[in-house]
Amino acid sequence: MICRAKENPILGKKDFPVLHEGFENIGAFNAGAALCGGETVLLVRVAERPVRREGRTLCPVFDPASGKTEVVGFTPEELRGNGDPRVLTVGGKRYLTSISHLHVARSRDGVHFRADPAPLLQAQNEYETFGIEDARVARVEGRYYITFSAASPLGSVVELAVTDDFTTARRVGVLFPPDNKDTALFDRKIGGRYYALHRPSCSCFAKPAIWLAESPDLRCFGMHRFVAGVRPGKWDGARIGAGAPPFLTERGWVELYHGAAEDDRYCMGALLLDRNEPWKVLARSGEPLAEPEAPYERRGFFGNVIFGCGLTREGDAVRLYYGASDESVALLSMTVGDIFSHLGV
Amino acid sequence: MICRAKENPILGKKDFPVLHEGFENIGAFNAGAALCGGETVLLVRVAERPVRREGRTLCPVFDPASGKTEVVGFTPEELRGNGDPRVLTVGGKRYLTSISHLHVARSRDGVHFRADPAPLLQAQNEYETFGIEDARVARVEGRYYITFSAASPLGSVVELAVTDDFTTARRVGVLFPPDNKDTALFDRKIGGRYYALHRPSCSCFAKPAIWLAESPDLRCFGMHRFVAGVRPGKWDGARIGAGAPPFLTERGWVELYHGAAEDDRYCMGALLLDRNEPWKVLARSGEPLAEPEAPYERRGFFGNVIFGCGLTREGDAVRLYYGASDESVALLSMTVGDIFSHLGV
Repeated sequence: MICRAKENPILGKKDFPVLHEGFENIGAFNAGAALCGGETVLLVRVAERPVRREGRTLCPVFDPASGKTEVVGFTPEELRGNGDPRVLTVGGKRYLTSISHLHVARSRDGVHFRADPAPLLQAQNEYETFGIEDARVARVEGRYYITFSAASPLGSVVELAVTDDFTTARRVGVLFPPDNKDTALFDRKIGGRYYALHRPSCSCFAKPAIWLAESPDLRCFGMHRFVAGVRPGKWDGARIGAGAPPFLTERGWVELYHGAAEDDRYCMGALLLDRNEPWKVLARSGEPLAEPEAPYERRGFFGNVIFGCGLTREGDAVRLYYGASDESVALLSMTVGDIFSHLGV
Repeated sequence: MICRAKENPILGKKDFPVLHEGFENIGAFNAGAALCGGETVLLVRVAERPVRREGRTLCPVFDPASGKTEVVGFTPEELRGNGDPRVLTVGGKRYLTSISHLHVARSRDGVHFRADPAPLLQAQNEYETFGIEDARVARVEGRYYITFSAASPLGSVVELAVTDDFTTARRVGVLFPPDNKDTALFDRKIGGRYYALHRPSCSCFAKPAIWLAESPDLRCFGMHRFVAGVRPGKWDGARIGAGAPPFLTERGWVELYHGAAEDDRYCMGALLLDRNEPWKVLARSGEPLAEPEAPYERRGFFGNVIFGCGLTREGDAVRLYYGASDESVALLSMTVGDIFSHLGV
């Protein structure tokens, strides 16, 4: 049975320190997950913003030259026409209303987590001036590979960092140029090649869709293939992207992905990909595997969102850690068999 | 002195066969260039479209399943609101008004060209249903690497093909996922790595800009870096992209790039990139190196366009082959010294 943990939401904005003076946390959500040294480790996106002052809305922007997070303020008149709580456009320039970093939380039981004292990764370079977001973690050949989104006026790119223990991580570089997000590495080679699912966003023609790329070294990717697109009119009709890293089963690779309709309601679904030719979709959810139903999934900073970036698998047991309403982290438990039943395979 | 060939334009739509019955060529432009076997070889984009019938505008779409180019027709009522001669949007779907393929033309003197009997590459797979466009050719370690754009409802991707003689070419795969264009390979390794300039287009935040990526094998690219962006208010204020493949000089890599302002007027400029760290811009054109002035550059299918994709270099002599007004191929001659003078280096 696919069921929500009764402890949900298991992590929230109060569980993490605020990094910058005069800022407040607005959410802790969209976490990558891994099993490491007997612990479940979550790499949580923590979003913070400057506290509103003197009637002005303040947007944080990291400055790589000074190493400081600066604040840009706008009056209500300047903000006229802006509706999305996450993004502002003023004078032809776009800003995010918060800046995110990646913070580790650890647990012995996979349900009760405690945050590390300091973040693992935060904005550092010119690709990250609007922050870093939505980590996925894949354990490949004994090391942990972290793929995350970075946002800046240069666009949204996917970066790679590597860690052995989640106490320090080394940035490797930009894996995918703008606009790209939602990158999930396969945890082992297939036919001698590494693989990644990724989510390019186009300036025209195409809706955001799931693509596959291969690599000789986990640094350079190519031979891109389209895997799955939106289904107009359905729950995943407006945009989709990889969720947690895919995991191998006896029937093929299982990928838990997110999909949203035009009304920005995010659900999770499943793809079954061929074991040896992972660009081939063998099965796909008709209806969502999970959709926003619980109060913490329906209401929050950006409501009606279930957004899974991380899972752990022990034997047949799968735990999906997901962001709820861009505000908290929650947990869904299921078995591999539950996913097969859902997919009708 | 930077000067136009008196034979300009040197190739046009009448110089190439029409591939499909009931179609007409509307342009032969945006050519890659190479020296091969004592000849100058141009790989020309030839665009054709169905002849308008019964008052309807017809758009060509290649169908990979049947291997045929189908035609979709629209009445003037259905086309209301469409202004761009290149692209149509009907019922939320986008179409191109023509479909392009890549056709070789050869010359002994680099000025007078004769087209091969048949195209080298034409639409073949699901990434190419709106055609293939704007080839660049780099000779690397004795082989010719062709990078070209492919358009379809999946977005605009960059593909790679390889040839030894321009009589046959082998497709390798998709180098860069959507949306990307204007990819130019460096013709040799730098510090043990291959490099490419490319041009991602973002769905938000960023204007189209020139990025650099590295590769161990010319198939898989990563470690992306931003190189140069638009300069608002200038001739390259709306979008820029790599033109011809960069070539190495004693002062660094010279890249002749295109830039357009908001009014869609395309000019050519130059970048000087660091010899060993080619993501570092040492110099950049203030004013255009070349701008639409001649009649064939100012008027045509899409007027006021100079768009260079190919060049040859013999000693100090550089010949830039460029598309004029999305309709014909023209030639600019210059020396490396002319480019240095223009850059003030």
